[in-house]
Amino acid sequence: MTNRLLVLAFLLVGTFTIATAQEKVNDEINDIIRKHGLDQSQAMEIAGWITDVYGPRLTGSPMLDKATDWAVKTLKEWGMDNVHLEQWGPFGRGWQMNHFEMHATDPSYWPIIAYPKAWSPSVKGEGEVIYLQANDEADLAAYKGKLKGKFVLFDTLRNVDEWFEAPAFRHDSESLLNLANAPEPTPRPRRNFRRLGGFNFNQMLWEFIAEEGPIAVLDRSYKGDLGTVFVSGARTAEGRGQTVDNKVVPQFTLAVEHYNRIFRNLQRGIPVKLSVELDAEYTNEDEMEHNIIAEIPGTDLKDEVVMFGAHFDSWHTGTGATDNGAGSTVMMEAARILMETFKESGEKPRRTLRLALWTGEEQGLLGSRAYAKDHFAEFPPDSYTPQSLKPDQEKISAYYNLDNGTGKVRGVYLQGNEKVAPIFRSWLQPFKDLEAGTLSMSNTGGTDHLAFDAVGIPGFQFIQDPMAYFNRTHHSNMDNLDHLVEADLSQAATIIASFIYHTAMRDEMMPRKPFEVEDEDAADGSGGK
Amino acid sequence: MTNRLLVLAFLLVGTFTIATAQEKVNDEINDIIRKHGLDQSQAMEIAGWITDVYGPRLTGSPMLDKATDWAVKTLKEWGMDNVHLEQWGPFGRGWQMNHFEMHATDPSYWPIIAYPKAWSPSVKGEGEVIYLQANDEADLAAYKGKLKGKFVLFDTLRNVDEWFEAPAFRHDSESLLNLANAPEPTPRPRRNFRRLGGFNFNQMLWEFIAEEGPIAVLDRSYKGDLGTVFVSGARTAEGRGQTVDNKVVPQFTLAVEHYNRIFRNLQRGIPVKLSVELDAEYTNEDEMEHNIIAEIPGTDLKDEVVMFGAHFDSWHTGTGATDNGAGSTVMMEAARILMETFKESGEKPRRTLRLALWTGEEQGLLGSRAYAKDHFAEFPPDSYTPQSLKPDQEKISAYYNLDNGTGKVRGVYLQGNEKVAPIFRSWLQPFKDLEAGTLSMSNTGGTDHLAFDAVGIPGFQFIQDPMAYFNRTHHSNMDNLDHLVEADLSQAATIIASFIYHTAMRDEMMPRKPFEVEDEDAADGSGGK
Repeated sequence: MTNRLLVLAFLLVGTFTIATAQEKVNDEINDIIRKHGLDQSQAMEIAGWITDVYGPRLTGSPMLDKATDWAVKTLKEWGMDNVHLEQWGPFGRGWQMNHFEMHATDPSYWPIIAYPKAWSPSVKGEGEVIYLQANDEADLAAYKGKLKGKFVLFDTLRNVDEWFEAPAFRHDSESLLNLANAPEPTPRPRRNFRRLGGFNFNQMLWEFIAEEGPIAVLDRSYKGDLGTVFVSGARTAEGRGQTVDNKVVPQFTLAVEHYNRIFRNLQRGIPVKLSVELDAEYTNEDEMEHNIIAEIPGTDLKDEVVMFGAHFDSWHTGTGATDNGAGSTVMMEAARILMETFKESGEKPRRTLRLALWTGEEQGLLGSRAYAKDHFAEFPPDSYTPQSLKPDQEKISAYYNLDNGTGKVRGVYLQGNEKVAPIFRSWLQPFKDLEAGTLSMSNTGGTDHLAFDAVGIPGFQFIQDPMAYFNRTHHSNMDNLDHLVEADLSQAATIIASFIYHTAMRDEMMPRKPFEVEDEDAADGSGGK
Repeated sequence: MTNRLLVLAFLLVGTFTIATAQEKVNDEINDIIRKHGLDQSQAMEIAGWITDVYGPRLTGSPMLDKATDWAVKTLKEWGMDNVHLEQWGPFGRGWQMNHFEMHATDPSYWPIIAYPKAWSPSVKGEGEVIYLQANDEADLAAYKGKLKGKFVLFDTLRNVDEWFEAPAFRHDSESLLNLANAPEPTPRPRRNFRRLGGFNFNQMLWEFIAEEGPIAVLDRSYKGDLGTVFVSGARTAEGRGQTVDNKVVPQFTLAVEHYNRIFRNLQRGIPVKLSVELDAEYTNEDEMEHNIIAEIPGTDLKDEVVMFGAHFDSWHTGTGATDNGAGSTVMMEAARILMETFKESGEKPRRTLRLALWTGEEQGLLGSRAYAKDHFAEFPPDSYTPQSLKPDQEKISAYYNLDNGTGKVRGVYLQGNEKVAPIFRSWLQPFKDLEAGTLSMSNTGGTDHLAFDAVGIPGFQFIQDPMAYFNRTHHSNMDNLDHLVEADLSQAATIIASFIYHTAMRDEMMPRKPFEVEDEDAADGSGGK
């Protein structure tokens, strides 16, 4: 190390120490938060209702309505204020499965592990399988008249490798250091899938299939094995199954071993027959959905708001435990911890605390984006780039989100907002024993904090231990309560409760990163300079 | 190390070197074996038919008959001699599943991953679940009249831990060294479960359940998660489901996450309703089963026989791939490799080579023990301790068995026979590049070589890489072709073919460990000294 670098290092340490010293931390309140969060955790109790009883919670489904009723009732029982639903939409139709079974019937009988893709219509039938191998219009023509009464195999064989590495893991020093040292991300250009490519063969393919009317289309999902099946929504030529009047061909995802067995027998020249029965129901005639909102009122700064939340909806084959019963549990539990903490300490929050449980996240952050549109900004049609801001945009100090499974909090993604680093560092200091100390300039995407980030409100997602989230539970049939880890959920709720508390109590709102509303010309890429 | 130990070490090394030098290895033949075994392997082709097409192969089932027909046909096509079935029994009734489905219907619908235990009778019904918690007669009395029309939960919750260690693994230097350094095992006393304890509560429990007549008994097996379910045979008060006239209560094993969800909802005071439909069929009226035998005839020593085999039967929820499609594949493939090798080299084996594919292994090595009884020894009723030996017992040089999954061969369990060590060491020498070099004085049990060992014939099981055998595939619904590893199977077939060849060609039979037929008094533990 050169002298110059040494000086620089000194300066950096110095800066952080001063910043840390300026940011107040209330140790007494943290102790109370720890008591209610760690010693008297209700996380598994909450998670149990959300998953075992009211899971899965597909957006638009009757079960999500029941889960919503339970959440509203529970938040009211805790004494939260202004507990209400905020309607958004139209989302599209709801869907629920009333009965499902699939079997191989020829050349021999075996029960198949499979799931309908959400929004698949009812179907009952038995027939042979056929592999549809088509890359262009000419390929398709060869299948004309051949799919009727058949099960269409849509995928090739997928090789299954044995698990010589653990499917579940926690961050270690190396992976945390990588996050800590990550550079500020460069913004990615917006992608518009619809516009990619002039000719859309997929659309033609799905139109062809819908016209031919097979019993069902079968795939084996791109990952998962050993009984774990990853499943999401049905496709249509027009787009998504939830859109009313889109014609959905029944679609099922099979356990890879079962799919492969069928495929290989076909390759051996052995005809395979399957049978299926799906009794599914379209629901939610008004096509509207709801976010759940609940508050703890503030005092001297009550017009300013600290928001925290998670998406409450899930996919439909498990019970939505790690995605995102976990996040919903932690955020509800954080609210409960704070209610208890204020009761015990006699303190009141300065700013208003607002919990939001979003819906429609799995279909594109629809609930949180609708909230942003209702409260924070005007958007042009079919766009999430705001045209102008509403007054409430200035009133939200920060939004905290959790949506990466059951793993405990290991730090925070700063989402490119370096000014919050010294503040978060101070707040994390008292939780060193809980191993949550890493700040990363990198972003994380794919969930509801982006709806806030997009309108210039500081929105943060926490760094979590990955556990088996991406390998086993995320969007899978095995996303069940058993894969939630109590100690991790209670740790997360405790730290996040403290974050919310300190955000509510500090003199200033949280610092924002530079943000400008683009003018319309700039927004569509044609304007500027 | 003291001088004396150094001398001892020298002596040991010296002994092995001399022994090694004496034991002939035919490098030219090994090259041909390698060509057919490694470069032109048919292992996956064989395994595909055994599993995808003719799996699962439950003893007594019609599918095992079909698999047997295929094996006989295939072995004949390869030009093997004396291909025939040897009947044994009575085994009991056969069983096959013609349709199975299970669902949760209340408080919400979801399809359940579950499997009938083999020999469960047909049942169709819907009803509530009830947890049967009974440790004695008085506990049972409280359930009198309460099980009818119900699903009986038999197990408590089982905690599911995330997989922070890899489910699949190969031996490393440490685990191989442990095997290499294992001491000679001390014989374990025979256990007779039936005689343990004067009072058998389990028998009373199952009599009570049979009398009460619930829809079904449910458990969640002692291991498995994430969609992998371990299932074997149904229990009855009298013993096993295959015994004709034993009354079998329908029994099902559920994926642990699904079982736990039901159990937890019950704990929450929420009634849970399930529905089930099993269409099962008892078959095999004559109650007899068959081992498959095929030979390559010997020449100058043709009355002496080298045997090799594996059990061909399986449990019923996967396709019996690693247990024991793998072993059956490797042993069939070894026979094929040897046929090709003799054809190409113009050589003939000195001793007769005899392949045996056993059935009834999963129910207690029944096929191989019946073979031992027919050919090698007289046994008292209900005993596997021979009373006297038959002449053929002297004619079997060795029996080689494979039944520990898909993992490649890493060496041999000597089964307490130290005299074979230098011979095996010589034979393994040319396969150093295939990482099969470890000899262990320790035993391995639980499979068909024990039927030979029990009558004084050298019977060996190979050390294999564990892979995910015990964690994922052994007796599970996920014991499918996808979990066979081609390179491992072809390695095993190559090495075992070479072992068979060299056993057939050496001047002497394989050395035996000391063996005496116990007199009847000694056998029941009351006689002697």
